[in-house]
Parts: sequence; C-alpha cells; structure tokens
Amino acid sequence: MLGGRVTVLQPRQGYRAGTDPVILAASVQACAGETVLELGCGGGAALCCLGWRVPGLTLTGLEIQPGYADLARRNLAGNGLAGEIHEGDVAAPPAALKARSFDHVIANPPYFETGKGLLALDGGRGRGRTGDVPLSVWVETAARRLKPRGHATFIQRVERLPELMAAMQAVLGGLELLPLLPRPGRPPRLVLLRGRKEARTPFRFYPPKVIHPEDVMGNGRKNYSECFFSVMMEGAALTFEPEIG
Amino acid sequence: MLGGRVTVLQPRQGYRAGTDPVILAASVQACAGETVLELGCGGGAALCCLGWRVPGLTLTGLEIQPGYADLARRNLAGNGLAGEIHEGDVAAPPAALKARSFDHVIANPPYFETGKGLLALDGGRGRGRTGDVPLSVWVETAARRLKPRGHATFIQRVERLPELMAAMQAVLGGLELLPLLPRPGRPPRLVLLRGRKEARTPFRFYPPKVIHPEDVMGNGRKNYSECFFSVMMEGAALTFEPEIG
Repeated sequence: MLGGRVTVLQPRQGYRAGTDPVILAASVQACAGETVLELGCGGGAALCCLGWRVPGLTLTGLEIQPGYADLARRNLAGNGLAGEIHEGDVAAPPAALKARSFDHVIANPPYFETGKGLLALDGGRGRGRTGDVPLSVWVETAARRLKPRGHATFIQRVERLPELMAAMQAVLGGLELLPLLPRPGRPPRLVLLRGRKEARTPFRFYPPKVIHPEDVMGNGRKNYSECFFSVMMEGAALTFEPEIG
Repeated sequence: MLGGRVTVLQPRQGYRAGTDPVILAASVQACAGETVLELGCGGGAALCCLGWRVPGLTLTGLEIQPGYADLARRNLAGNGLAGEIHEGDVAAPPAALKARSFDHVIANPPYFETGKGLLALDGGRGRGRTGDVPLSVWVETAARRLKPRGHATFIQRVERLPELMAAMQAVLGGLELLPLLPRPGRPPRLVLLRGRKEARTPFRFYPPKVIHPEDVMGNGRKNYSECFFSVMMEGAALTFEPEIG
C-alpha cells in the first residue's frame, strides 16, 4: 500500500482491505504524541497507513475476530510500528479499552446490514461486510472513547449517510462532511464524516473530491486524480479543505 | 418572479421571499390533480411559483402570522390561482388541516434558531428567519400530513443538514439530497432534501448543482448557470438528476 511504503498481509480468502482504509487513514489530522483508536480494525491496514504517515502516534485497534486481530498485530510489527490490538465487540468493548480515551477514533464499519447483504457470506468476509451492530452503536462507542475535543472520523458508503449523520448528530458536534466522487460529475459513492466531542461549531459540507479523473475504462492502469494519486501511492494526507491553486 | 410570470406582493419591511422559495417550488415533482401543502408558507411565493408551473394542483398553505397568511391569499388570487391558506402553528396544525393528507408537503423552515440568530429581530422578519419550532417538528408534521408514498421536500441552509437529515431519517424513507453550490468548486450553501413516506429505497446523494457559473462580482447583472437561469427566470422544473448532454 502507499506505493509500497506499507506492506500488509491479507487473508487469501475473506475480507481484504481495499482503498477505503487508505483514504480513512489519510483523512485523520493526527499529530505526533496523540492517541488513535480504530474500531473494527480488521487486519490493521488503516492503522499501518496512518502510523507510517504520522510517526509518534499511539495506535490502538479493536477487532472482534481473533484471526484478524492477530493479523493486525503482525502487520503493525511488520511495518515497524508499535500498537495494541484488543479483541472484542464494538458494542461491548473490553474493560482495558473502556479505561482509556483517545484523541482520534476512526472506523470503516461494515457496509451491508445483515439480511440485506449483496454478497454471499463466508466467515471473515461476511463479518467484514455485514454488520450485526447498528451504525449508531459504532458512533456511540467512538464518542465514549474520545477525549473532550477529540475527533471521530468514519468512512462509509453513501447509502448509509443519513443513518451515520443522525448517529453523529446525536452524540457529537462540529460535523464535517467530505463526499468522494468516483468520477467528476458523478454522485458520491463514499463519504468521510467527522465529528468532534463537545464541539458546537456549525456543520461544514466540503466541496466533493474526485478519486478518478475521467471515465477511462479497462486500460488496466491505476488512474487517480492528482490528489488521490498522492493519497493512494505516496501516503499523503487528505485534507477536507479544497487544495489551493 | 420567474422572469415576470409570477408577481407577488411582499411587505415593505419584514421577511421577503428571495430565491429559496423559487428553487423549492421548482424542485417539486408534482402533477396536475395532486395536492400540495406548504408548511410556513409566508406570503405564498413558493405556492404561486409551483401553481404557475404545474396547473391543476390543489394548493394549501399553513402560516402562523395572519398578515402573511392574508398576503398569501392575495398573492394566489393575484396570479389566478385557487388555494387555501390556514392560519396556525406547524407544531399544532388546525383541525381542518389535520383531517387531510397530501401528495406533497414542502417547507422552507426558518434558518436561525431563536437566540442564535444573526439578524436583529423585528416582527415578521424575525418570525421568518428565526424558528421557535425545532426542525424535527416541521418534519414530523410534514410526515403526518403526507399520503402513503407522498413526498416531503425541504430547502434549508447547509448548516442545518445534520438536524434535517436526522429528522427525516427518523420518520420518512427514500431520502434524496441535492446540494446547491453558489459557485463551481465552492461548498454548498443550500440543500434540498426530499423524503418519501413509507419508502424503503436507499439514500441518494445527487451531484451538486451550481447556481452561479463563475465568480463575477459586482457587475450588477443576474448571473445564473444555465440550469438556474431556466429555474429562476423561466419557471422551469429543477430535477435532482443531472441534465443529460
């Protein structure tokens, strides 16, 4: 990942991290010395990317499936990163996590509700894609684990924006939305939504960012907009603000 | 309004309809024979624009201030439109309204919460701009007055999108969001949000539409994008879908 700067092991079968954890990691405005918790960290791809980009973070993950938790530990170590992966449920985090609070909580919750999934379910892949836990519970757990003024950042398919926004609006303030368009002029397929604990700043809706520059089909090349080339291949930060110039 | 096709009387002082009711009216996909209720209809600008564009609608308004309700009646009549304006509170509509249901409910609720307003409050203008009634109550009243499969369409400042979306998500389905950008590449300032009673279709987030084509300042001319020129000056419909071609 990040043009070879980060290497993660992934299961041969089951849920495999795609571009979403990379984008999520790029969007977190964390500084050295801060603490980060990822809910449902899977094999740790987002934590690895974030740890590579921002040295000096304290990285923590929560993952319900022991196999993925173990993979996340190996992936952190394999990229020379320290971190702590807890096994447990987002709906009922282990006591060791409940004793702590974080500057940043990030999550890429499962996309399809159980019973509505579009994919055949098979163990790991099923877990990674279909959630038993409502989005509101993910957001409530995130809010509880945040320090005052800490940020929660979620990446999610656009179809679940109303549910996600309602959940964040209920427990966090200062919401910020960045829609991600697959191509110029297309509807967004993904959204980044950030909220801040105890903030009262007005909602901000940022101009959408475009992932792929134009509709070039089937040429087999990675085809990113300038901004997303930096994010995906060079490990750059993804700001919500428009680039200048 | 609509390039002179619709004429509305407005108070010399106090709340005066701007572009928002015109955009709201343009966005309603109503057909002859259907029924429309506007909550907080003010002087009736949106009802007049909608009635002009779609002949054969049954137009109904609810307005708390008798002076504006009377103005709405005069404006409907002045544009050759039949319609019924009720005086009453969105939080507690009169019995005559509660006995009815509608194909469409539309609203352009006040933008600033009481106590947070940016403007000096002076009677009518204060009422039109600062709401005592939470957005959730507007949406709940809209949902109750809709027929099954009927549509509620709200226009609102982007700052209140989380509140509006949470409210609609709680009582309506099939949400559809159209952000309106003041200029290309700028964040939206206004949003149109539509929900459908008893619908279960997934949320749709449409590509934003641009009101003004470019940053031409101070030349004194009305300067609309092609789409919004049709909407504002010619009374065209505003579809959520991107135009083809």
